[in-house]
Amino acid sequence: MTDISRVLDTADKGLEQSLDRLFDLVRIPSISTDPAYKADCRRTAERIVADLARLGFSAALRDTPGHPMVVAHFEPKAAHGKVPHFLFYGHYDVQPPDPLDKWTTPPFEPQKRTGKDGVVCLYGRGTADDKGQLMTFVEAMRAWIETTGTLPIKATILIEGEEESGSPSLVPFLEANKAELTCDAAFVCDTSMWDAKTPAITTRLRGMVKDEITITGPRIDLHSGAYGGPAANPIRILSKLLSKLHDKNGKVTIPGFYEGVGEVPKEIKQQWQKLKFSDRKFLKEVGLSVPAGEKGKGVLEQIWARPTAEVNGIWGGYTGAGTKTVIPSQAHAKLTFRLVGKQRPEKILKAFRAFAKAEVPKDCRIEFASYGSGSPASEIAETSPLIRKSAKALKDEFGRDTALIGSGGSIPIVRYFKDVLGMDSVLIGFGLNDDALHSPNEKYNLSSFHKGIRSWVRVLGEVAR
Amino acid sequence: MTDISRVLDTADKGLEQSLDRLFDLVRIPSISTDPAYKADCRRTAERIVADLARLGFSAALRDTPGHPMVVAHFEPKAAHGKVPHFLFYGHYDVQPPDPLDKWTTPPFEPQKRTGKDGVVCLYGRGTADDKGQLMTFVEAMRAWIETTGTLPIKATILIEGEEESGSPSLVPFLEANKAELTCDAAFVCDTSMWDAKTPAITTRLRGMVKDEITITGPRIDLHSGAYGGPAANPIRILSKLLSKLHDKNGKVTIPGFYEGVGEVPKEIKQQWQKLKFSDRKFLKEVGLSVPAGEKGKGVLEQIWARPTAEVNGIWGGYTGAGTKTVIPSQAHAKLTFRLVGKQRPEKILKAFRAFAKAEVPKDCRIEFASYGSGSPASEIAETSPLIRKSAKALKDEFGRDTALIGSGGSIPIVRYFKDVLGMDSVLIGFGLNDDALHSPNEKYNLSSFHKGIRSWVRVLGEVAR
Repeated sequence: MTDISRVLDTADKGLEQSLDRLFDLVRIPSISTDPAYKADCRRTAERIVADLARLGFSAALRDTPGHPMVVAHFEPKAAHGKVPHFLFYGHYDVQPPDPLDKWTTPPFEPQKRTGKDGVVCLYGRGTADDKGQLMTFVEAMRAWIETTGTLPIKATILIEGEEESGSPSLVPFLEANKAELTCDAAFVCDTSMWDAKTPAITTRLRGMVKDEITITGPRIDLHSGAYGGPAANPIRILSKLLSKLHDKNGKVTIPGFYEGVGEVPKEIKQQWQKLKFSDRKFLKEVGLSVPAGEKGKGVLEQIWARPTAEVNGIWGGYTGAGTKTVIPSQAHAKLTFRLVGKQRPEKILKAFRAFAKAEVPKDCRIEFASYGSGSPASEIAETSPLIRKSAKALKDEFGRDTALIGSGGSIPIVRYFKDVLGMDSVLIGFGLNDDALHSPNEKYNLSSFHKGIRSWVRVLGEVAR
Repeated sequence: MTDISRVLDTADKGLEQSLDRLFDLVRIPSISTDPAYKADCRRTAERIVADLARLGFSAALRDTPGHPMVVAHFEPKAAHGKVPHFLFYGHYDVQPPDPLDKWTTPPFEPQKRTGKDGVVCLYGRGTADDKGQLMTFVEAMRAWIETTGTLPIKATILIEGEEESGSPSLVPFLEANKAELTCDAAFVCDTSMWDAKTPAITTRLRGMVKDEITITGPRIDLHSGAYGGPAANPIRILSKLLSKLHDKNGKVTIPGFYEGVGEVPKEIKQQWQKLKFSDRKFLKEVGLSVPAGEKGKGVLEQIWARPTAEVNGIWGGYTGAGTKTVIPSQAHAKLTFRLVGKQRPEKILKAFRAFAKAEVPKDCRIEFASYGSGSPASEIAETSPLIRKSAKALKDEFGRDTALIGSGGSIPIVRYFKDVLGMDSVLIGFGLNDDALHSPNEKYNLSSFHKGIRSWVRVLGEVAR
């Protein structure tokens, strides 16, 4: 029997106790956004600290201006020699449970119930997001330690208590504890599987940069009868500018925009095709049927691996009830650019602004309002050893190829780890689309929890090699 | 001595009395929009009725749901045989005078003052708009009647008291008194001269039709990370649609848009050129310098004789402070089309809507909100006998060619006379650009009043022939 088989065996045998420990956490209403639950947040953190300490971690509750952090370190026994050092991230705080009357059983009285479809689920606020998820790696570590007396890697655990309320203390905490928290890479357990049978690692997150433009034509609003014709209309100028942002194939026309945008490797494309994602169903859910992005690219590629220029808002002139015959002085638009690959936010912003300026007649004015400096995409090469090993571990557990997927949006923690600690993140999670995160009747499938623990047992074994 | 010379002589000799009568009218604060001045409005109307009755008009105050109308008819003596019948329009109501502290002398205590430039002006609310103007034709008629015992034409006078508050009673009154008020044509005295030395007749008023469009893409607002790329963005669709409304030469691209738009006759263009209008100065006043309308057309032609498609307002998505990464469900725009020549509002609307629909992807939706049925342009051929005769009369008085000008906007009364009574309007007025209409220190040049009276003496003589 290999180490891993024995550890998996321990994990299986301890499942009921693992569940008890998860339920103990779920029973504490650690709602970070509501000051009434401040003591509950602290109590949750203290319980995790105590649990990790019992496991042999040097664990501590660390105060912040908000809710405390849990930081714990495990130094493996010398027998393993030089081993890699990973950070494991989760969050112990949860969303408020209201509307309470929509819950079948009370949110903070966790229950295991079998549905009509025979699927066993764990119900309660935080069973999935993120107490259930973070306990998958904690319980996997417990199984390793109980079985072998140590972990096969060096581990640092960081559990925060403000994720559901914007993580205000996180970046200052990372900055203040850089040396302590910087590892070879981070494992973040707060994402989903591709589907109930297919494990997934999120390897691509798009970056983003935002801009706002104001075009000024006449110095005041003008009567459209007295000036209509000769006077420049900033709405027309803005419309023209925006209409030129994309060519007829849906490609962004800003010069240099695609610098640093790589093609998706053929193997990855093939893998994505195997996911049998339905572009049609995806669009139909939001009332659409015609893919509007770059021609020749499927929805998954468009969202996971292609940059965009989107207008999020537009306004100018008279927008009230009825009509007003005005040529407005100003027109405005808010834009976001989603970034991939090596696109640099500051270069994109500069290129867009040059592009926009060129569209404005010389007697009109364009101004830009910045919102932060933006962030580049967070991507790990699908071929990197860490991804390869993690993917193999998940495949071993689920008996299916691990989907290496992307996400169209950004996940702040990944950016913070990269920006502050210079660390890549591997996003592994066992949530499912129907977990009702942030909603009544949040649940976590028992199989997500059980196979989640088993998956981490395998991941720890793989990445130690 | 001809009739006209004798009548002019009478007018000159009676100028002081004419001024007294005007000042008596100005002293009554006939502010139509403020109910506190209801009795003053009625008193003003009664005074005009009494004055016209003394002149031999069958004059009456005619009640409406709002302020009363003055209607008066003059039947010329048989000696003149078959004469044309004209309606003369003005309004006795005025704008509120505030801010009062900006007036050099109280608004309802009219004064004659000589400015630093030696120009004599009549100060007071309504001296120009429109008591001073309407009294020019009343005093001209008085001079005719006093001198010859009659008028050379058949005259109907219509003076309303609600022009400054939207004329709510006017159209119903015209409809209820169609037979009584329908004449060969109307003379409207509520416009300006080209400049202090150049008389003007406004022969071209643009028509207008309005539309509002709403484009719906996704059925709800979407996260621009999760959907940016494949999901149709209605702001992009709207921008593209609007950007296609004009070609690179500033011409409207809607098929059939220019049907019924005639070229301005060469003589008229030449006349306009002689007006020495400065496109540059016109644009500079509103902070612009580059003519934005149809290439190859000057500002005057663009405003007076060319149709437009203007966007008056646009909105969609997030327009508040900061940013929101959203692909909105809807985007909206309000548009007006200024019309000239024989363009039909209903045809323009139909053509625009067909054009707009063609720009919307098949999974998105476009809806239109109408605001009335619009109105075609009001134009009188510059070569028509009535214009020719009126222009000659004004030239005789001012010693300069009469400018046959246009106006980019519409003047409601002209449309009402045309729509309800089937009557063209000849717009003659003696206002100047610096009259401060609707503002503190409204004035009317004494020369506008005096030469205005003399002009009408001549016009009456000319159009009688």
